[in-house]
Amino acid sequence: MLEPIRFLLPGPSYVPEDVRQALARPLIGHRSAAFKELYARVGARLPAVLRTRGEALVATASSTLVMEAAIASCVESQVLHLVNGAFAERWHQISVALGKSPDRLEAPMGEALDPDLVRRALRRKRYEAVALVHNETSAGVMNPLPEIARAVREESDALLLVDTVSSLGGVPVETDAWGLDVVLAGTQKALALPPGLTVFTLSGRAAERAAGVARRGFYTDLLRYLAKHREGGTITTPAVSLFYALDLQLDRILAEGMEARWARHQRLQARTAAWAEENGFAFAPAPGARSWTVSCLRPPDGMAAPEIVQRLGERGYVVGGGYGDWKSTTFRIGHMGEVRESDLEALLAALAEVVVACTAS
Amino acid sequence: MLEPIRFLLPGPSYVPEDVRQALARPLIGHRSAAFKELYARVGARLPAVLRTRGEALVATASSTLVMEAAIASCVESQVLHLVNGAFAERWHQISVALGKSPDRLEAPMGEALDPDLVRRALRRKRYEAVALVHNETSAGVMNPLPEIARAVREESDALLLVDTVSSLGGVPVETDAWGLDVVLAGTQKALALPPGLTVFTLSGRAAERAAGVARRGFYTDLLRYLAKHREGGTITTPAVSLFYALDLQLDRILAEGMEARWARHQRLQARTAAWAEENGFAFAPAPGARSWTVSCLRPPDGMAAPEIVQRLGERGYVVGGGYGDWKSTTFRIGHMGEVRESDLEALLAALAEVVVACTAS
Repeated sequence: MLEPIRFLLPGPSYVPEDVRQALARPLIGHRSAAFKELYARVGARLPAVLRTRGEALVATASSTLVMEAAIASCVESQVLHLVNGAFAERWHQISVALGKSPDRLEAPMGEALDPDLVRRALRRKRYEAVALVHNETSAGVMNPLPEIARAVREESDALLLVDTVSSLGGVPVETDAWGLDVVLAGTQKALALPPGLTVFTLSGRAAERAAGVARRGFYTDLLRYLAKHREGGTITTPAVSLFYALDLQLDRILAEGMEARWARHQRLQARTAAWAEENGFAFAPAPGARSWTVSCLRPPDGMAAPEIVQRLGERGYVVGGGYGDWKSTTFRIGHMGEVRESDLEALLAALAEVVVACTAS
Repeated sequence: MLEPIRFLLPGPSYVPEDVRQALARPLIGHRSAAFKELYARVGARLPAVLRTRGEALVATASSTLVMEAAIASCVESQVLHLVNGAFAERWHQISVALGKSPDRLEAPMGEALDPDLVRRALRRKRYEAVALVHNETSAGVMNPLPEIARAVREESDALLLVDTVSSLGGVPVETDAWGLDVVLAGTQKALALPPGLTVFTLSGRAAERAAGVARRGFYTDLLRYLAKHREGGTITTPAVSLFYALDLQLDRILAEGMEARWARHQRLQARTAAWAEENGFAFAPAPGARSWTVSCLRPPDGMAAPEIVQRLGERGYVVGGGYGDWKSTTFRIGHMGEVRESDLEALLAALAEVVVACTAS
């Protein structure tokens, strides 16, 4: 049984005590038989989380590195970035920094990307890849990934590069069924692990294309990870302690089951939405665009979002402030990872107290 | 007091219990005041380890990423790689993978790089940078870094990029006094921390040059780390748990003092050398090239190096096997990090037993 969770940031999320204790195990050499077994155990189970019959890999780095690696490895020049939030913005910036020729298709912050607009953009120009963020943590927006994937597949032979940092493990991500080519996620969100590792997969199609791309770099070369994985290990010294945690947490995730985990996250979102409506809090994202893992809320008139975050903090609850342009007008509840209905109810009760306190003051 | 250390790999090295327990602390947001304080504490003390009045930075990645970043950020095209082991070989390979035009100046495995040859190479051609590995873990070879640095400084305006992965914290590395431009080290060697973070510094000169280099990438852009550091944080979500460990271990390292730490490593090397001579074990590296942190030894005739490693393992001691071409003929004792004379004596006693057992069998 987990302790009550009062840490509901939109990442890093709460990490269970047993998983944190796993970090403290004595180190082993990364070329030892013990590490090879650990790596093989992770590699055997991670594809079930990524919903692929392909290979699942792990980078010792933040997700940004694998976002960069996806561009460096799969794109010689032409890439279309779908942008409706801070992390998609960063991905575009990465393509610029790598000297690629990225185009942008934007939706306003808070709105989901429109698959029809993607379709039209792909009719106008040929792209090697389309890159998007499934769930924009910054705005609490979930993009219609299956519909976008279908549009990309039907209109082009572009590779689909998908950041699922705050969706994987909390929201359906069907790598094979939807035909996604590179799927990547940091471990510190709905997987409920500490930050420092990024899990990812690449399709056979992506691997073939990458083989033709020049200057993929080294740490950013996805094919290098794949080749080393097939030898049973990592490209460089891995963060062994973080692998201990991943190994243990995969047990918990798969014991719950992916479908059950997604359903739990959906219930947490629905409960948050119901509470918000009853209490005069508005969702910042448009109705069809609301994330299952993070709710971005605007408080009723007369209540300041940063004050709500602070007063929740005084009551022992950690939630996220607003991001970027929405910093002062929204706050974010990360109902992701191991958060249960009981944890959310306790938070909402505290939030109700805060509303009373804010109204009185 | 530390427990007896029986884990003497040439990295990852033994990590003290209290440092491992620090990993298990509950997570905090990387934008929280608590993380900013932690980051500032690390940033205030790390320059003393790197011996610089400049800024010390931390990447959430293996050292290879920062080796790549140093090339991507500081080199438009022409770089001279000094190569006498596996990790220098990798650095050259990284420059190739990035599409640079790297030249090589080699010394045979087991021999140190010759500063005079470096001098001559710099007279023949102009380079933007010279890259070398201070201590080649693969061969147990320590290169004469101050002499090489002097040669580079006197003969050229090339930047000096130095991998100190298995020397920093165990061997003098005088960043400012020797005029080193980029100094990088993974934390899992003589700093006695888990792998997953890389500490580094870059000189003002290096930062100026980097500003003129195109396509530095994002995760590989040293200037981006510097800019974020000056805002008090990291470029992406950092491996917070590993920062907890770094914060605590910096206390231990600086309480011992850098000079005392270097002297301890030198004594460990000298004791290993004396034991080897008494017992008919030869150092694989040439006499002037022996590392203070890792001893690479060839057993006497009739004894197989892999058998020695295995028999030590049966006695509870973990040492490293040979690397690459020396896999079957050498083994490596990592007397680095927190290893004390008493730990080394116990290992050498076990090794003496193994010698008897090998001779008898």
